[in-house]
Amino acid sequence: VTQIAVPFYEGMTPLDVIGPYEVLARLPGLEFNFVAARPGPVGVDASQLELVAEAGLDEVSKRDIVIVPGGPFSHDELDGDVIEWLREVHGTTTWTTSVCTGALLLGEAGILDGIEATTHWVELESLRRYGATPTRERVVEQGKVITAAGVSSGIDMGLVLASRLMGDVAAQAMQLVIEYDPDPPFDAGSEEKAPPEIVGAVRERVEALAREASRGA
Amino acid sequence: VTQIAVPFYEGMTPLDVIGPYEVLARLPGLEFNFVAARPGPVGVDASQLELVAEAGLDEVSKRDIVIVPGGPFSHDELDGDVIEWLREVHGTTTWTTSVCTGALLLGEAGILDGIEATTHWVELESLRRYGATPTRERVVEQGKVITAAGVSSGIDMGLVLASRLMGDVAAQAMQLVIEYDPDPPFDAGSEEKAPPEIVGAVRERVEALAREASRGA
Repeated sequence: VTQIAVPFYEGMTPLDVIGPYEVLARLPGLEFNFVAARPGPVGVDASQLELVAEAGLDEVSKRDIVIVPGGPFSHDELDGDVIEWLREVHGTTTWTTSVCTGALLLGEAGILDGIEATTHWVELESLRRYGATPTRERVVEQGKVITAAGVSSGIDMGLVLASRLMGDVAAQAMQLVIEYDPDPPFDAGSEEKAPPEIVGAVRERVEALAREASRGA
Repeated sequence: VTQIAVPFYEGMTPLDVIGPYEVLARLPGLEFNFVAARPGPVGVDASQLELVAEAGLDEVSKRDIVIVPGGPFSHDELDGDVIEWLREVHGTTTWTTSVCTGALLLGEAGILDGIEATTHWVELESLRRYGATPTRERVVEQGKVITAAGVSSGIDMGLVLASRLMGDVAAQAMQLVIEYDPDPPFDAGSEEKAPPEIVGAVRERVEALAREASRGA
């Protein structure tokens, strides 16, 4: 059995977790564990929704795959328990991965030093502080470290992981199971494609959310 | 405040919930409530993951928007409590919506009679039993009833809803916040695009999952 751990923490973005989960969970021989500093319900970013962590970080010291979700946080408010856990568990993984600003947690754990990586477009340049080379792609593979861009890109990363684990046919089957044939009503999903005034407003809003998260913590 | 209710039930597909949630939750003046026959942790389709329902179905008798998630179930195992609740709450909504096989719950509640609708491609033809006209589109709008195709299409439906609620600029901003600029490594996300042998295998597998769900219930 290939064991996948997903660390939960207060304020995380649930689609960062559920995107890769939904692609991978039905593959045979894979097992997910959802872990947090304190097991139990963990609140997500924008409302009262809670996802349940079934075990403590200290109960999981090695894993085949780790998937780290992001959230709207500032660099000085990154979850210290998760970072410490990542430093330990990364030595045991076949793949260590992140979605969105989960990359900042990998960076803080020293995992991105000297490699290419991506994250949410608003935070892309800040990867340099961890010795990483910011790379404007949806999914960046560097040896056993795979980083994905903002939020919804975790679905694409899940498909990349599925193909590495089980081959292209299995990955395509999972794409079909979740009917991932995207057809958004707008073409505004990247910094390059969205109208500049929307890019500016969203950048301000995301940065404000990070400041709010920082004050609330 | 625009109030959105999402009914939870055992075995639901979490991306059906989290896709629209992630698009809509950050818009100003929207409030989500996650409800179930019994409040508390609700297990999802493929593993031990649980999402927490904060209130009972009986605590919510009217809502502006209802979003019904799907799951791998057979027609004879649809959640009766949710169906009964839908019959009541639908009369109070501005929009009643479903993702994936959530459409079967709408159908059973009589909401799809005489209109066009969509659902997961494996179940599309079965919408006829509810008097609906199966429509092979990612998002189908018919007056106040909006149905989305399989699992990941809830993200696209969320963007349609966002534009109806707050306008196209707000919807595009949310697309950019979740960096929804899809770039799957394969083009196998629909019955038309996937290789026929994969379509056949997935159809068999999804139907087997529905039978398993039926036996387990």
